Amino acid sequence: MPDILHKVGIKSSSPAGTYKALTTGPRLAAWWTRDTQADTAVGGTIRFRFGEGGFDMKILDLAPGRHVLWEVIDGPQDWLRTKVRFDLSHDREHTVVLFKHEGWREPSEFMHHCSTKWATFLMSLKALVETGHGALWPNDVKIDEMN
Amino acid sequence: MPDILHKVGIKSSSPAGTYKALTTGPRLAAWWTRDTQADTAVGGTIRFRFGEGGFDMKILDLAPGRHVLWEVIDGPQDWLRTKVRFDLSHDREHTVVLFKHEGWREPSEFMHHCSTKWATFLMSLKALVETGHGALWPNDVKIDEMN
Repeated sequence: MPDILHKVGIKSSSPAGTYKALTTGPRLAAWWTRDTQADTAVGGTIRFRFGEGGFDMKILDLAPGRHVLWEVIDGPQDWLRTKVRFDLSHDREHTVVLFKHEGWREPSEFMHHCSTKWATFLMSLKALVETGHGALWPNDVKIDEMN
Repeated sequence: MPDILHKVGIKSSSPAGTYKALTTGPRLAAWWTRDTQADTAVGGTIRFRFGEGGFDMKILDLAPGRHVLWEVIDGPQDWLRTKVRFDLSHDREHTVVLFKHEGWREPSEFMHHCSTKWATFLMSLKALVETGHGALWPNDVKIDEMN
């Protein structure tokens, strides 16, 4: 099954800030969409909303400073049961984020779209940790006429 | 084999400007790297250079306004024999670009990196066609400490 892959390097003295941005309610709500409600324990659900639509993620696994794994439990059909994975490592003055959105059933046009959007939101995550300001929905980087 | 997929929508009255940016020397040199030398016929080679390194692409197929296909014939080991494909369509006032970099042998860390960089360069292509100004190397969007 095809996967969406990305990598960013975030200037930081430790992975703590990046991990916090992936695991706490206020920081999760500062790089993807402000309309985020999070029960941030393993087994909990994070609800990301973008106006009408959105995604519910179940937190499957957390390893502080190293790993975050979500499963999509509600959202667009193509996303259901897919998994979103962030693997963190620290390299000199940077936290390296390896990102994978895995389990897509087919390389649909929507998957192409989501790959490019994930890149823009990972750049928003990077900006949040480095500068305190992300580029989050609805003021995110637009890749086409709609999104 | 895993692929890198992306999609952008470029505001334009026809696909002509986008196609030109993918198939003519001066426009190719305006969204990825200025150091680009292109023999732009089918069977010709485009040489993209970024300081020391770079990529040589053989043009395998061209369909005006619709399709561009390159094969990597020189560059990093991971890129050799991979193919880069741009499929264009026109949707109201936008040219939709479906992008695929296919034939990767494994989902290496470098592949993650290249996926994110392709997103930034496709946004540069979009900016070039829409505004006349891309964000090309060495003034491209940086996704980590190096690139």
